[in-house]
Amino acid sequence: MFYNKYLKIKEKNNSHVCVGLDSDYEKINGEEDLYNKIYNFNKNIIEKTKNHVCCFKINSAFYEKAGIDGIKAMEDTVKYIKANTEIPIILDIKRSDILNTAKAYADYFVDKIKADSVTLNPLMGRDSITPYLEKDVHVFILALTSNPSANDFIMKDKFYLTLTKFSQELNNEFENQVGIVVGATNEKFKEINKINDNMIYLIPGIGAQGGDLKNTLEQVKDKEFVINSSRGIIFSNEPEKSVIELKNKINGGL
Amino acid sequence: MFYNKYLKIKEKNNSHVCVGLDSDYEKINGEEDLYNKIYNFNKNIIEKTKNHVCCFKINSAFYEKAGIDGIKAMEDTVKYIKANTEIPIILDIKRSDILNTAKAYADYFVDKIKADSVTLNPLMGRDSITPYLEKDVHVFILALTSNPSANDFIMKDKFYLTLTKFSQELNNEFENQVGIVVGATNEKFKEINKINDNMIYLIPGIGAQGGDLKNTLEQVKDKEFVINSSRGIIFSNEPEKSVIELKNKINGGL
Repeated sequence: MFYNKYLKIKEKNNSHVCVGLDSDYEKINGEEDLYNKIYNFNKNIIEKTKNHVCCFKINSAFYEKAGIDGIKAMEDTVKYIKANTEIPIILDIKRSDILNTAKAYADYFVDKIKADSVTLNPLMGRDSITPYLEKDVHVFILALTSNPSANDFIMKDKFYLTLTKFSQELNNEFENQVGIVVGATNEKFKEINKINDNMIYLIPGIGAQGGDLKNTLEQVKDKEFVINSSRGIIFSNEPEKSVIELKNKINGGL
Repeated sequence: MFYNKYLKIKEKNNSHVCVGLDSDYEKINGEEDLYNKIYNFNKNIIEKTKNHVCCFKINSAFYEKAGIDGIKAMEDTVKYIKANTEIPIILDIKRSDILNTAKAYADYFVDKIKADSVTLNPLMGRDSITPYLEKDVHVFILALTSNPSANDFIMKDKFYLTLTKFSQELNNEFENQVGIVVGATNEKFKEINKINDNMIYLIPGIGAQGGDLKNTLEQVKDKEFVINSSRGIIFSNEPEKSVIELKNKINGGL
């Protein structure tokens, strides 16, 4: 169960850092075939960071980009993490579909790949989410994304608060199985905190430098939360140093 | 280009039918390995229906459900359709992600698999859609889905009209590259028609019997549209007979 695994490893590693394995093969050096290029890259990152994180996040897009070889590397990366660590894995799939089809995705990502948690897009409503929850897996629902065109729908009329309320209601029903993705600034977290009773936050890449991190921490420190960093760690010249730096910055702000 | 291929084959086959290859391996008989089970099943359906459809739709969920073997069967099914027919292919992926990640998905589904069109979830806004359009591919944007929990967000405050307007604006900018998924009844199509200037409709499974089809056709007959049927055709005892029946029912209502 994601939530319990997270609580345990957060204590052990004293860390709120999630490392995002956005392992785009075009950014990885080496002459190997695509499968080994991605898989070996991930093994190295996992080994260098596993004592300083509370979860790993794998975005399926970067594996699908590499085709069958990449998807095989995704599957085997999950296996590697499970065999060698106790760190929970979020598969960042942002899928959405009707009940019957959502079940097919859940068959793959939960039953076969054995994700501890998956990210989901809630636009299609409850029946696009429950097939995962009914398999006892954890989900992170998109509530507020930080991309520029979040303004098109998510920010408009504070739709993110509606999405937060929807997610909290699901978490009341499926205890500790629902978290929310919130790429927010200080002010928005204040609003969301009023609705979020007990859901864990997945916070995508905020600038680890500058005031953003400090302000965010001010808002979330009384909740459960993980802060994701992908490129800043995995494509750093010194991934271990980078993850420790981020961990310490976060802990220093708490 | 999806739109031109669709116009051409619609005339040639005198058909508005899209066959959805929701080829769930658990529903396919046979003793073969998963790859051959799915791929041979699809080849048979394609051969039996190719003279009576205007497009094929492939929902990635049912292929991912079967793991690597299924995904390989999905890739090869697209190749088979391209090599043996002139029928455009919609990859029903309903993906959503930020710009950089949407690009990675587009690299796979457009550049590698060579979809003619993909379905996308618009919740994250413009920058989750444009990476596909900039590769000159066609997209179908979810505007109104027909699942029960469409009531949670899409139906509320007529959000489907906002999504239709958003899609039409993109189609004004990327000419004939944008369509919308509308699983609607009579009344809703009336509203959507007022905003939809020139986008093609992708209409998911409406009851081929009864009044629903007739009422829907009444609303869409002056637009471009395709009506999808999946299980009703592919798991029919006589797929060819089933697709001809649906084609004739639709044409009879025009």
